[in-house]
Amino acid sequence: MILVVATVRVHPDRVEDYAAACRDMMPRLQAANPGILFYHAGRSRDEEATFRVIEAYADREAMERHIGSDMLKASFAGMRDYIADIDIRVHDAIV
Amino acid sequence: MILVVATVRVHPDRVEDYAAACRDMMPRLQAANPGILFYHAGRSRDEEATFRVIEAYADREAMERHIGSDMLKASFAGMRDYIADIDIRVHDAIV
Repeated sequence: MILVVATVRVHPDRVEDYAAACRDMMPRLQAANPGILFYHAGRSRDEEATFRVIEAYADREAMERHIGSDMLKASFAGMRDYIADIDIRVHDAIV
Repeated sequence: MILVVATVRVHPDRVEDYAAACRDMMPRLQAANPGILFYHAGRSRDEEATFRVIEAYADREAMERHIGSDMLKASFAGMRDYIADIDIRVHDAIV
């Protein structure tokens, strides 16, 4: 299993737009790829306008299918203006 | 749902000890608390001796039960020497 944690700092005036875009696209992206074991986003309680997206992939093929998908590219293009900074970390699960 | 992401920097010579401790304690901690929806740890691919633990709680009560549990306190006491630094962020899930 591969775990991905993306820390997304959003422009303060686009927080609701970003949240709405996540709510719209993430369920559809997960439904399109059975190799996505879970796919969640949450708003940090103690960092301004910061979200973390956490994802689990069954294997590398599932992650690459997601990253390469037209749906993700289209979704991301639609929300790029909301995002100030993004840090993506990939992990090999140990538990 | 509440999402917690803990970034754990481990002393480089204690990486295997920390991983073994996670493998030992995390399944038992999750089994003891049905409010833990998922509980995973992964080793970062591009940060030295760094793990992220990701947790999902059904609600605040489940998270507080976990944080207050003797089992967690005992587990954490046993691995404290492995840990150089820990950053814990709590999030309100939006998806």
